[in-house]
Amino acid sequence: NKDGLRFENEDKSVSVALGGRIHADYRNFDHSGNDKLASNSSANESDTFDIRRARLVLSGQIMDHYTFQLSGDFAGQTAGNTGATLDQAWVNVNYWRPLQVTVGQFKAPISMERKMSSNTLDFLERSLHDSLGSYEDRGLMVWGIPKDGLTYAVSVINGEGNKNSNDVDSRVSKPEVQLNATVNFAELMGNKDAVYHLGVGYADTEFSKANSASSSASTWWVAGSNQFRTEARGVNFLALPNVGSVANTSNAIERQRFALEGAVALGPVKVVSEWMRNSFKGDLSPTADFNNNIDAWYVSTLWNITGEKFADFYKDGVFKGVKPTNNFDLGKGGGTWQLGLRYAHIDASDFNNSNFAAAGGGTQNGVSRINTTSKTNTFEAGAWTVGLNFVPNPNTRFMLNFVQTNFDTPIMIESKLKDNEKAITARAQFNF
Amino acid sequence: NKDGLRFENEDKSVSVALGGRIHADYRNFDHSGNDKLASNSSANESDTFDIRRARLVLSGQIMDHYTFQLSGDFAGQTAGNTGATLDQAWVNVNYWRPLQVTVGQFKAPISMERKMSSNTLDFLERSLHDSLGSYEDRGLMVWGIPKDGLTYAVSVINGEGNKNSNDVDSRVSKPEVQLNATVNFAELMGNKDAVYHLGVGYADTEFSKANSASSSASTWWVAGSNQFRTEARGVNFLALPNVGSVANTSNAIERQRFALEGAVALGPVKVVSEWMRNSFKGDLSPTADFNNNIDAWYVSTLWNITGEKFADFYKDGVFKGVKPTNNFDLGKGGGTWQLGLRYAHIDASDFNNSNFAAAGGGTQNGVSRINTTSKTNTFEAGAWTVGLNFVPNPNTRFMLNFVQTNFDTPIMIESKLKDNEKAITARAQFNF
Amino acid sequence: NKDGLRFENEDKSVSVALGGRIHADYRNFDHSGNDKLASNSSANESDTFDIRRARLVLSGQIMDHYTFQLSGDFAGQTAGNTGATLDQAWVNVNYWRPLQVTVGQFKAPISMERKMSSNTLDFLERSLHDSLGSYEDRGLMVWGIPKDGLTYAVSVINGEGNKNSNDVDSRVSKPEVQLNATVNFAELMGNKDAVYHLGVGYADTEFSKANSASSSASTWWVAGSNQFRTEARGVNFLALPNVGSVANTSNAIERQRFALEGAVALGPVKVVSEWMRNSFKGDLSPTADFNNNIDAWYVSTLWNITGEKFADFYKDGVFKGVKPTNNFDLGKGGGTWQLGLRYAHIDASDFNNSNFAAAGGGTQNGVSRINTTSKTNTFEAGAWTVGLNFVPNPNTRFMLNFVQTNFDTPIMIESKLKDNEKAITARAQFNF
Repeated sequence: NKDGLRFENEDKSVSVALGGRIHADYRNFDHSGNDKLASNSSANESDTFDIRRARLVLSGQIMDHYTFQLSGDFAGQTAGNTGATLDQAWVNVNYWRPLQVTVGQFKAPISMERKMSSNTLDFLERSLHDSLGSYEDRGLMVWGIPKDGLTYAVSVINGEGNKNSNDVDSRVSKPEVQLNATVNFAELMGNKDAVYHLGVGYADTEFSKANSASSSASTWWVAGSNQFRTEARGVNFLALPNVGSVANTSNAIERQRFALEGAVALGPVKVVSEWMRNSFKGDLSPTADFNNNIDAWYVSTLWNITGEKFADFYKDGVFKGVKPTNNFDLGKGGGTWQLGLRYAHIDASDFNNSNFAAAGGGTQNGVSRINTTSKTNTFEAGAWTVGLNFVPNPNTRFMLNFVQTNFDTPIMIESKLKDNEKAITARAQFNF
Repeated sequence: NKDGLRFENEDKSVSVALGGRIHADYRNFDHSGNDKLASNSSANESDTFDIRRARLVLSGQIMDHYTFQLSGDFAGQTAGNTGATLDQAWVNVNYWRPLQVTVGQFKAPISMERKMSSNTLDFLERSLHDSLGSYEDRGLMVWGIPKDGLTYAVSVINGEGNKNSNDVDSRVSKPEVQLNATVNFAELMGNKDAVYHLGVGYADTEFSKANSASSSASTWWVAGSNQFRTEARGVNFLALPNVGSVANTSNAIERQRFALEGAVALGPVKVVSEWMRNSFKGDLSPTADFNNNIDAWYVSTLWNITGEKFADFYKDGVFKGVKPTNNFDLGKGGGTWQLGLRYAHIDASDFNNSNFAAAGGGTQNGVSRINTTSKTNTFEAGAWTVGLNFVPNPNTRFMLNFVQTNFDTPIMIESKLKDNEKAITARAQFNF
Repeated sequence: NKDGLRFENEDKSVSVALGGRIHADYRNFDHSGNDKLASNSSANESDTFDIRRARLVLSGQIMDHYTFQLSGDFAGQTAGNTGATLDQAWVNVNYWRPLQVTVGQFKAPISMERKMSSNTLDFLERSLHDSLGSYEDRGLMVWGIPKDGLTYAVSVINGEGNKNSNDVDSRVSKPEVQLNATVNFAELMGNKDAVYHLGVGYADTEFSKANSASSSASTWWVAGSNQFRTEARGVNFLALPNVGSVANTSNAIERQRFALEGAVALGPVKVVSEWMRNSFKGDLSPTADFNNNIDAWYVSTLWNITGEKFADFYKDGVFKGVKPTNNFDLGKGGGTWQLGLRYAHIDASDFNNSNFAAAGGGTQNGVSRINTTSKTNTFEAGAWTVGLNFVPNPNTRFMLNFVQTNFDTPIMIESKLKDNEKAITARAQFNF
């Protein structure tokens, strides 16, 4: 898309751009193939070449005030969804910049990291923090840019949080309302060399306990074999206890999200941090209820070794991809080099208590009990990532990451109890 | 596609158009979330935002006489088919307008409503009548336009009736032969202000009882959990009794379709009606056979409040989308407004008898018995739809429908016995 | 793509081509519908219209040295994978013709037949030999053309052998290394009227017994209900015995491929032959191991009745599609006519012994035992194909094949024991 091709009709009332992206990955884990005697029970634990994304993107503008995007991913398969998947499909009506309306499947407004294009992420994968957030979702969004440096968005969406699960028809007891607002003080003060970004988010929805079943690929309530996965796309390590339907109690679970985001960019260096809490409330039994949180956060920094200024690539609340000052050519050099460091943390220890194990018996287990028996779960984890990127031209990028995830409670990986996972991951990326 | 972009090579021997369509829907049901204590067992019963269609379309013409279309839907998932689906993929050879040949996956010729593009339907969804018809199917079609106002088509197709079920390889005992012919008397008489359309259709095929299994997503014989759904895409309400393999009887079931279609358009008003019968014949046991029908029909009317003449948008047997006389712009007005009303009816009461329950025991139940125990089925239903459309420009459309479906026999919806479903549905549509 | 459309930006640094292909097939078998009393248990055994391929292809070149291809197939469903599938997604870096690097999902280098585009195959389907080969796979390839007439490739890939199985994450104990080299002596000698092609291939990988489970759609080890299928896309006829995890034995299985390819083209006639052996080694029990082979080969010939010279359509180790000297037009004639004959053979009789049946009991059966009880398997099969092709223009092709597959041991097809399958298959093909 960026630096891609754009076609217009004669009177310029219709303009369409055709783009694509290929993300070709390799992942190598320290635990992989340790033991030839063992049966590898999980594909996630294996070294592999992967096509992380293979997307076609149609976007354009019609009659000045209507913009659209339609993108599909031919490598979008997940456990619950084989075949190609829909990425985004939305129409935006823009008669006035401060007040616009988007309908369709679009990125929910909360989280700076989520709103970055996957083509422009600082590291191969978004952080553990992103597991608590909202992905592309379906609904309606009113948003705008009242003034350069200020953005806001109010969306009413299904609240499923993931386009891949149960897409055919969502079970929405109450749609999710999401609010987000950001400010870039540097832009307000007329400083073009820096970014001082601050943002807040809040969301509220209600869903049925039927959506927390471990057998489904539900992202309402990650449970059972449906677990959070490490940033390196390695092992699954964290799920919430199951909560099932219990006689004479409401099936409704309320989920609230609270989010904070901040970023400072000075010349070729940026530091970004986000925090999010997902808070779940509901009835466990006719006499007991629950009110528990999962929290996650990250801090990351990225340095353009070749000197490009990050403020040049920030727009309307989001960092865009850095374009090299000079494109790389053999013998002449050029291209952008970047070095990054990130720490992310996720904490669901608030669910580590006997309430869940007690209510409803065998199928409603506490996290602690899950770990005691099958040792597939932990309560908390933290992950370090070191990354090196090379951007020879705006269409191409090569990335190398080292990711170490530390588990609070050791879990079984290929028949061994381990308290961390180490991975080297690499990507060759092409977008046009 | 329409008003989209078309590219040609230098000698104009190849011309390709790239298009897309986004249908972003919202559905709200009267029964949804009535009872927080109940477990929502069916996703179909929930309020939801949906991407109804997200298609990429390549079409074009090569060497004057070859036209093609290839379209895929990234939101094409159904219960039996996750991921993106193939919509149409055909090549048409046109050396002579009265005699053309199409091969590939195309719209089967029967039914005026089916042949309309989903971009140009009068209401959000096709009527209950469409449940008995044939969708995109794979095969070969000989067709033509002998004279303006006359069309005919003879197709030999798999007869599966739905592109989503068992697409990999169809089980065809005998391919379906479909015949269709239409006449527009107004065109024959040289009247350009009106449409007096009449059409007939007939089809015959034979399939195996193995295709009537309730577990499959078969559209040969809708049974078990595979039910007809309301026009509002709400609850499932009607299935045929199961017929399984029985020793010493033929597994063959013969299906015939009989179809009539008629339309009158005078100035800005059109009235359309269609009727179809599906007739099934086969052996129930060595001593008993069956010969039963399902019938469905609808009558609908649409009024262009803004005065556009429907005859201008009728071509070769099908109504195309109405284009506004003036495109809408803020402050200046413009665009097309439409008001519509439809009644549709489906009747499978011919299957409501004890023959099916008797033959083969527990797994071969009559409709009546299905309803007596699980109360998920009715014999007959009728649906009223009122619709309002706004078409600001040829690429955009907004639709609002109210749909009430009345069930002949009450069925269980969210733990309550109800004899109707009310729904408000809305669509923002974008095609290019 | 070929003769398709190509778009460039102003400074010609980005050039993108949009293409597509539609393969519309019909297959008719001698055994289909023989017995209306029988339940057709396998869809593969039925006559059918099929969309064999419906692909969108984006390809292009960026900044002179980077080429890419991204293609998805909307008709790519297989038993294990509904919905659209990814075909190819790769980027090639080409600063020097003799040493290039490709990353992503691409065609593995072994087999001349495999590397031909499906648009240009001599017959509707690749031969039985192709069952042992490698399909599109994910990884990295170093390759080059040191001199016209010489090619080599070294690839490191997942080794899954099929893009459709377990794509999300491959279980790679050890990646597959594939080597291939070809020479065209005619080109080396400066003879432009002939092709004297010779090639060799070797590959080695190791995978887990967990990947040989019959329940999965694994292509590592074709077993259980996951069988090889006839060239006519008819019945499944050959699977290897299951090997499961056994205590105190390694789970590792080593697979080696040995491949030879040769082709001679003189004027309008070409003769092509390939041979491949897949060799599997591993432990059956703590005291016994196995080391068994499957072999397959084919010889085929194709004659351009209309005289086009094959050497004109050979490039860098692969035959490209023949373009007609004059395009066909009604009344004027033109187009290319081709007549072909092929024999292919597959032989897994090396697995027909009591070792597999003995080790591990009921679930680890020898081929012989599989046939004795369910009669769904043979050890060896050979297939004759006669084909006639008509190519009216470079974008269109019509094909007609007769295929007879002879089974060494008779198998049950629609309740009858048969020692062969006869099929007539046809294709209308459109690519742009």
